[in-house]
Amino acid sequence: MTSPHSPGSQSALRQRNRQSVVHALLAGGPATQAELARTTGLSNATISNIVKTLTRDGLAITEPTTSSGRRALSVRLHGSRAVAAGIDIGRRHVRVVLASMGYEVIAEEAHALPLGHSADEGMEAAAALLGDLVNRAGIDRGAVIGAGVGLPGPIERRSGTVLDGAILPAWIGTSIPEAFGELLGLEVLVDNDANLGAMAEIAWGERQDATELIFVKVGTGIGAGLVIGGRLHYGALGTAGEIGHTTVDPQGPFCRCGNRGCLETLASTSTMLESLAPSTSGAVSTADIVRRGLAGDSATLRVLDDAGFVLGRVMASLANFVNPQVIVVGGPLSALGDALLEPIRRGLVRHAVPVVGETTQIVMSSLGDRAEALGAASLVLRHAGLSPALRSLLDGKQVEGFTARQP
Amino acid sequence: MTSPHSPGSQSALRQRNRQSVVHALLAGGPATQAELARTTGLSNATISNIVKTLTRDGLAITEPTTSSGRRALSVRLHGSRAVAAGIDIGRRHVRVVLASMGYEVIAEEAHALPLGHSADEGMEAAAALLGDLVNRAGIDRGAVIGAGVGLPGPIERRSGTVLDGAILPAWIGTSIPEAFGELLGLEVLVDNDANLGAMAEIAWGERQDATELIFVKVGTGIGAGLVIGGRLHYGALGTAGEIGHTTVDPQGPFCRCGNRGCLETLASTSTMLESLAPSTSGAVSTADIVRRGLAGDSATLRVLDDAGFVLGRVMASLANFVNPQVIVVGGPLSALGDALLEPIRRGLVRHAVPVVGETTQIVMSSLGDRAEALGAASLVLRHAGLSPALRSLLDGKQVEGFTARQP
Repeated sequence: MTSPHSPGSQSALRQRNRQSVVHALLAGGPATQAELARTTGLSNATISNIVKTLTRDGLAITEPTTSSGRRALSVRLHGSRAVAAGIDIGRRHVRVVLASMGYEVIAEEAHALPLGHSADEGMEAAAALLGDLVNRAGIDRGAVIGAGVGLPGPIERRSGTVLDGAILPAWIGTSIPEAFGELLGLEVLVDNDANLGAMAEIAWGERQDATELIFVKVGTGIGAGLVIGGRLHYGALGTAGEIGHTTVDPQGPFCRCGNRGCLETLASTSTMLESLAPSTSGAVSTADIVRRGLAGDSATLRVLDDAGFVLGRVMASLANFVNPQVIVVGGPLSALGDALLEPIRRGLVRHAVPVVGETTQIVMSSLGDRAEALGAASLVLRHAGLSPALRSLLDGKQVEGFTARQP
Repeated sequence: MTSPHSPGSQSALRQRNRQSVVHALLAGGPATQAELARTTGLSNATISNIVKTLTRDGLAITEPTTSSGRRALSVRLHGSRAVAAGIDIGRRHVRVVLASMGYEVIAEEAHALPLGHSADEGMEAAAALLGDLVNRAGIDRGAVIGAGVGLPGPIERRSGTVLDGAILPAWIGTSIPEAFGELLGLEVLVDNDANLGAMAEIAWGERQDATELIFVKVGTGIGAGLVIGGRLHYGALGTAGEIGHTTVDPQGPFCRCGNRGCLETLASTSTMLESLAPSTSGAVSTADIVRRGLAGDSATLRVLDDAGFVLGRVMASLANFVNPQVIVVGGPLSALGDALLEPIRRGLVRHAVPVVGETTQIVMSSLGDRAEALGAASLVLRHAGLSPALRSLLDGKQVEGFTARQP
């Protein structure tokens, strides 16, 4: 407790309540006063008072909005004195976003990376891009309170080490918080791409209202991020959401995991490219699948249909088990829209129990290839209560604000 | 707020803290003071003070125990002034337990019900048995603060209505809280058998430490209850845990749900009985499967092996998705022990991603056919904060206790 007040005092109580509101805004992004009351358990009157002092102190701004058809006041943390970096690293790219405490994107850029790049190469490219964005945006480097990093594939939760089975073999064994943290001089949080995609959907996407959401990333690998009760679900070891190795056909193709007939052997983008090889000449890329699919190429549509149907079948199991409000499909194929979503939906409805098939919404991510970097930035904002930089900023303001009003 | 104190006062704060501790003990059963501190977020000193006043008021008792190898004090709510009833109704039986606030079984009994009994018959049998147990235990009828009811199959969460697809066709459309509540003159809570089994495992079973647990009931139907973060997970509609209709073989037998090759068509007790018919003479019952399996009958072991392996395969998908600490297998076959657990484990390890297969514990329930009734009683205790009877008992004590000490 860094408070100068005795723990039981009225001013300490007010300070705790104010912290609750700030943390709710950091964790969930802009919210109406009614939503803040629900999240924090504080009364509407208390919320209204706290929002007034936050606005007065220049820490928040309010904007009129509508919520459930009624006029309401949306509250957003304000200013770029505290900024979160989101870094997304893939097999061939690095993307960095800078986001404000109020979930506004301040700067964003992606660069290509060579296939098979080393961890050092990738991290240096990310650090250079981050430095560049900070400079160009005219932000004080000290305002960057931390960096979130997204990587495809499994990550050991306690140490943040990239595990075997990752899509980036040259990164296996690297402790991301340690190595990246040292390079950047920042606190670094790390998570896999599917979890960050899920986080991005509830923080930045079109389903910010959802408390039960599943994000499925379909790419070279296939993974899911599970939001349960409004929070990411990690499970006992942190490996929750592993859907790519669901056995679909016990006699199917052998998988890199050592099993047979896993979903990834039937519906990853690599499998789709292999399936397209006999009917096409020359190399085909994931971008080609999107282009040809949208152009109505029949071989491509057949491949998407088969892959989508089996994706839908596995999503049906997942939906039966977890009963989400919505499943969001992300990854490099999301621009395909209905060409991929339609067979997925067919597979889902065919294999789910009727009430689940009928009520589970299924949509394409509107965040496209920005999802992971945005999710990584919100990871930092969500944990910003831990950041000394932000805490001193808020606590300073806070104590000052309240001591000025002390009776 | 029923408190006579102003909301911000010290005494109101103490009262809220005391309520938190009582609710934690009701919701989770007996706990050490350290566990109570973790659950409530209160300091060890505050917990210790509250436990002293609860003991002084006769509302709790403490017993020495060991926790993580160290000596500790276990706190348990005390007395039978507030008692929860747990009622489990199956196709052929009704079981009632009476449990104290301190999670002690005061009385328990099961009676047979005719196959195909009506909802009224079942409810009247349960009411008679409950009345009988209350009388014999010498408990004041007014001390029964509510009844939890467990039924096999899906239940509409908001209204507590038995849905189509339930194992008890004569009960479909019955609103359990309404019909049962009127008959018993009690607040009635209802849930399905698999959810109550999961709740029983964390409240009464051997894995009370688990926060990520899956209970799988294998019977005429197959269902799962998911404990996530120490709480039952219901999902958007309350249908979470539906594993019986996972598609295992898209060309498999047609299922009562209208789909094909669902887990239930391959591994329910009904399917096992059908599979045994060609190799046995006369009618075979679920109890016969247990007896013959334990006696080493080769046809029975083969049926159990096939069913267990496919159960393990579906549990592997579930474990991949949710990453639990432990899967507990319950239902009428749990007495089979390794004869069923071994093929399930083989199926799990074969089909799960390696780290999940290696670390997910899988055990048979030690609660046997008592699981649902015990879970139903703990459902009442968990929600007892809502019960006017219990609230007046606790609040009375509480205000009295504190006013006596008011400075």
